[in-house]
Amino acid sequence: MAANSESDRLRVVLVAPRNPLNIGAAARAMSNFGFFHLRVVNPYELAFREARSAVGAAPLLAKAEEFKSVAEAVEDCTLVVGTTAVGLRQLQHPVRRLDQAALHLRKHLAGSLVALLFGSEKHGLSNEDLSHCHWLLRIPTRVEHRSMNLGQAVAVCLYELARNPQAPTKHEKRSAASAADLERLTTLLLDALRSSGYLKSNPSSLQRRRTAAPTDEKIRRLVRRLHLSASDAELTLGILRQILWKSREGDKSS
Amino acid sequence: MAANSESDRLRVVLVAPRNPLNIGAAARAMSNFGFFHLRVVNPYELAFREARSAVGAAPLLAKAEEFKSVAEAVEDCTLVVGTTAVGLRQLQHPVRRLDQAALHLRKHLAGSLVALLFGSEKHGLSNEDLSHCHWLLRIPTRVEHRSMNLGQAVAVCLYELARNPQAPTKHEKRSAASAADLERLTTLLLDALRSSGYLKSNPSSLQRRRTAAPTDEKIRRLVRRLHLSASDAELTLGILRQILWKSREGDKSS
Repeated sequence: MAANSESDRLRVVLVAPRNPLNIGAAARAMSNFGFFHLRVVNPYELAFREARSAVGAAPLLAKAEEFKSVAEAVEDCTLVVGTTAVGLRQLQHPVRRLDQAALHLRKHLAGSLVALLFGSEKHGLSNEDLSHCHWLLRIPTRVEHRSMNLGQAVAVCLYELARNPQAPTKHEKRSAASAADLERLTTLLLDALRSSGYLKSNPSSLQRRRTAAPTDEKIRRLVRRLHLSASDAELTLGILRQILWKSREGDKSS
Repeated sequence: MAANSESDRLRVVLVAPRNPLNIGAAARAMSNFGFFHLRVVNPYELAFREARSAVGAAPLLAKAEEFKSVAEAVEDCTLVVGTTAVGLRQLQHPVRRLDQAALHLRKHLAGSLVALLFGSEKHGLSNEDLSHCHWLLRIPTRVEHRSMNLGQAVAVCLYELARNPQAPTKHEKRSAASAADLERLTTLLLDALRSSGYLKSNPSSLQRRRTAAPTDEKIRRLVRRLHLSASDAELTLGILRQILWKSREGDKSS
């Protein structure tokens, strides 16, 4: 999400959650993806207290607001969206797949508060809960196993909402080895292969030019196919120099 | 993911997981998104046994393979990708953001086995683990809170991998109300508004045509702005007919 103010307008609403671990997991995913306003409707009281007092509980959880009804929890929101695992047929609401839903949510978050509702672990959102929603969002899970764990569902939704395909991909660009380095590497590698006896050793430079050419080319192509970075080329050059030195020392002493 | 065979080529590898709930959660997310091959390296033995014997444990978990080392667990894979929460600077591997990574993974899965590695809850993947990887994948979490829960990280990665933006969005198309229905609705609503005294009641049809036109138009526009579906228009027509009937009954008896 581009602006912080956008993520700041989302209210994540857990309706009747029963498991303290799930409440904690939802809070953690919120913090991971930069959403900080958690609301809880009618939680299983013990679970909520336990989640709040857990070691390492997010400060986010301490600030979570508690409500007696969905109506109260979404009062200040102009868009209310429910999450569902149920297939399309059974629902009386329009249903959007998560990636499409995220586009709509982002648009709306630009200007006003949006509530995203998650139902209880056992039963999801009730028909009464759903009647407060403008439309529903479905994570595209397998038909044979639709229902997700609550904490995981929250994580996936917030990932998609925070995801910004337009963000520059900070994919670390390793600078590639220069052609000069690759050629030095090729020469050293050929020397090492001859020195070790893998290739016929020390042909006269005349012979070498005539007979070893196909091998030279083969090795040169191999070295290029490695797509070495500048630093990996340097590392490899060092290794080869050491091998060559050792091999020549061996030749001298024998 | 388009073809089942593609998702069938992914190996999800949990390295040294310690918490049975996380192992179970990873398996559940795999099943949700259609990936069925779980491998576990050096799990905390008790946790693995507990996860496998948990009530409702996925059959997937029963078939999970156990390995003593990362090397053995990825032996048959031609691409090994590690997941990391660490920033780009500290790593010696190329790092791809999840959405970019998924594109590469999908391409590779078209033809051969791919291992996706997740580290232990406490420490993530070790440098030794990472040295088996071709490159790394990072979920774009907040810099201030990078580290995700294991089960949630697996869910988010597999969601992105299974996500197919090209898939037809089965967004339920509710057929919109016809113009005829909307006009019927407008007329009935105007009748009800007059019958209830909200608008001046029963002007002669001549008067009505002259003086009530601006109100008619206002109400007509309001009805169009509701974007009613065919079935909601029918429902609303029924409601208005009943209100009108009731109101006329009242007029008769008074």
